[in-house]
Amino acid sequence: MRNISTILIALFVVTSGVAQEALWGGQAIISPEINEDKSVTFRLNAPLAEKVEVTGDFLPRKIIKSNTGEYDIPGTAVLVKNNKGVWEFTTPEPLTSELYSYSFNVDGQRTLDPANVFMIRDVATVTSVFIVGGGQADLYKVNDVPHGTVARRWYDSPTLKEQRRITIYTPPGYENSKETYPVFYLLHGSGGDEEAWIALGRTAQIMDNLIAQGKAIPMIVVMPNGHTQNPAAPGETHRDYHPAMGGGPREAVASMEDSFGDIIKFVESNYRVDKSKAKRAVAGLSMGGMHSAAISAQYPNTFDYIGIFSAPPIASMRSRNDEERSKYADEFLKKLQVQKQNGYKLYWIACGDTDFLYQGVIDSMKKMDEIGFSYTYRESDGGHIWKNWRIYLSEFAPMLFK
Amino acid sequence: MRNISTILIALFVVTSGVAQEALWGGQAIISPEINEDKSVTFRLNAPLAEKVEVTGDFLPRKIIKSNTGEYDIPGTAVLVKNNKGVWEFTTPEPLTSELYSYSFNVDGQRTLDPANVFMIRDVATVTSVFIVGGGQADLYKVNDVPHGTVARRWYDSPTLKEQRRITIYTPPGYENSKETYPVFYLLHGSGGDEEAWIALGRTAQIMDNLIAQGKAIPMIVVMPNGHTQNPAAPGETHRDYHPAMGGGPREAVASMEDSFGDIIKFVESNYRVDKSKAKRAVAGLSMGGMHSAAISAQYPNTFDYIGIFSAPPIASMRSRNDEERSKYADEFLKKLQVQKQNGYKLYWIACGDTDFLYQGVIDSMKKMDEIGFSYTYRESDGGHIWKNWRIYLSEFAPMLFK
Repeated sequence: MRNISTILIALFVVTSGVAQEALWGGQAIISPEINEDKSVTFRLNAPLAEKVEVTGDFLPRKIIKSNTGEYDIPGTAVLVKNNKGVWEFTTPEPLTSELYSYSFNVDGQRTLDPANVFMIRDVATVTSVFIVGGGQADLYKVNDVPHGTVARRWYDSPTLKEQRRITIYTPPGYENSKETYPVFYLLHGSGGDEEAWIALGRTAQIMDNLIAQGKAIPMIVVMPNGHTQNPAAPGETHRDYHPAMGGGPREAVASMEDSFGDIIKFVESNYRVDKSKAKRAVAGLSMGGMHSAAISAQYPNTFDYIGIFSAPPIASMRSRNDEERSKYADEFLKKLQVQKQNGYKLYWIACGDTDFLYQGVIDSMKKMDEIGFSYTYRESDGGHIWKNWRIYLSEFAPMLFK
Repeated sequence: MRNISTILIALFVVTSGVAQEALWGGQAIISPEINEDKSVTFRLNAPLAEKVEVTGDFLPRKIIKSNTGEYDIPGTAVLVKNNKGVWEFTTPEPLTSELYSYSFNVDGQRTLDPANVFMIRDVATVTSVFIVGGGQADLYKVNDVPHGTVARRWYDSPTLKEQRRITIYTPPGYENSKETYPVFYLLHGSGGDEEAWIALGRTAQIMDNLIAQGKAIPMIVVMPNGHTQNPAAPGETHRDYHPAMGGGPREAVASMEDSFGDIIKFVESNYRVDKSKAKRAVAGLSMGGMHSAAISAQYPNTFDYIGIFSAPPIASMRSRNDEERSKYADEFLKKLQVQKQNGYKLYWIACGDTDFLYQGVIDSMKKMDEIGFSYTYRESDGGHIWKNWRIYLSEFAPMLFK
């Protein structure tokens, strides 16, 4: 029996040296450590490094200037090396409850935190993340509550002439129920794909928690890919994928708005859903907000609930000059008139007060005021960031289908 | 309209500077580049670095020695800097068709390839990956074929007294069919979780492609989490998760074998499945192979197809000394006698000829020979690596349910 004994010991030992399988790192270092006072300590074992910085959204933001304006970006902090070669930084203040993203910069090279198992991919970049609980971000945690199902499926889009990947959340109990459910279509921004709302958006956790708390009613959340030139996220498509907005290896056959009917048809023929206007919602962030405005206008008697997060409702992604933009706005206002006549229960516009799209949102609302198109406006702190989009989702979902 | 014009330009520009949203990196560098002769070039823009290496499973392996034996680990190659600060390395030979993993090492610090959007997480480590086509690895690609659905669900385990996360592949057409399907339970190794087979194992792609080619029949593939002390993968559990085999914040309430009935019950009450022995298979790699042997023995008239990849069938993960191991083997052989009497269609054992568990596999088969327990043995090149487990899955799945 000596061999099997050796086997079992070896099974514990060998894996750490095998890079292909890339098993647990065997880090003795704890990073990040959320201290009792809610300050957070970051540590990196890098004895050979000359300079280690951490960059993340928990640090005071810096202003950078470009030829299109001023933008604030996450700040950096310098770690200090101890005599064992471990670099360390502790935030000077406690952090408020939030999901934070960060990475290290070692002698100019970006790296993840090797001691932290929590990572989220956003298009082409993986970032280390952590959650400080005790407030809003408790909604973003996996809690010990009933969990819905997250399915990655493929639907046929006759308009786009191909199969496309789609992420669908069904609430706890869906599979063992005979009831019909309302549907919430939730659209990502220009830098995202069908994984964005599930990953950084924490949609499954937010919905699980809101439903468990009785704040939102059980609903299906449908998260398609809004880049019609790509069938799926990077790594999930048979075509070469160039992860840049408007990029990709081919021109889009049709727009998100023009092809959206294929998604509704797929959902309504594959899930037990209530097919009435009162049980359909559409919302999105940034480009997805523009899509939501355009879709709800183009299918003017289809959605009772519309959410526009951090985007001007009256804006075209495709107009190339002032004349085209003006024409788009005029036509869009006519569609809004029709939408107004058909009626809806909630048209919810949310934007951060330092968002670079803020003025566009204000201008759009002014135009809507002129035609007496009613909406609810929610202004938050901050800019064009996931922190706001998670908050908007947390606030929007409880208002739906009631 | 000037504002909206500015908005749309800004939407293209701002994102690259915003680390929190971590959008596309704007890399002009192509890496890895698969050249026409199937050699591969790696590039990294790191003008300040003093030394850049690439480590990956496409490089000749190195032998390292530890007190438990000799192990071969992936090799490294040194990149050379050009006058623009871009480091480069081209493999001296063409690479055979395979899914390869790699990372860079910049002045001693591990980093992903920032120019490559293809990444796979394996427990706590994210690795850059690429596929060289034109052979076996065409099965690992997302091809333009009908795609199944991959769902992350939670099942209730009364034995383990909690909800647990599980990954389930349903084949193309499942949702719109009224037929029943066979079920293949596919178990990960000690360093994995319920994401392992889907990520590095490429199960969804392999099954989609084998089914499209008519080589495998449509089946449901069930991928549970084999660490019974953890309910889910890191980032997906409400408990602290320490990603190490046998680790975790608590002792397991019960073993994988003892709690496996909960999984079968969940699958058979939630999916349209054929509940006969002829339509059930179980297989796994390494620890999951031991689990598959133990499960098929403990439920001795339940599975017609058993696959043991890179693991000795007769080995206990829990025996602590020779006496316990000997007792386990004796009891296990009695169970195999029962399994033999009940009958089965395929008992498939596969192992690489340099696998550190090789001798244990040989010893187990010798014991099985002694009691006339029949099996099929497949020996491949190589060691305890995902390359082999993808090959074994590609070969095992076509033999099922026929």
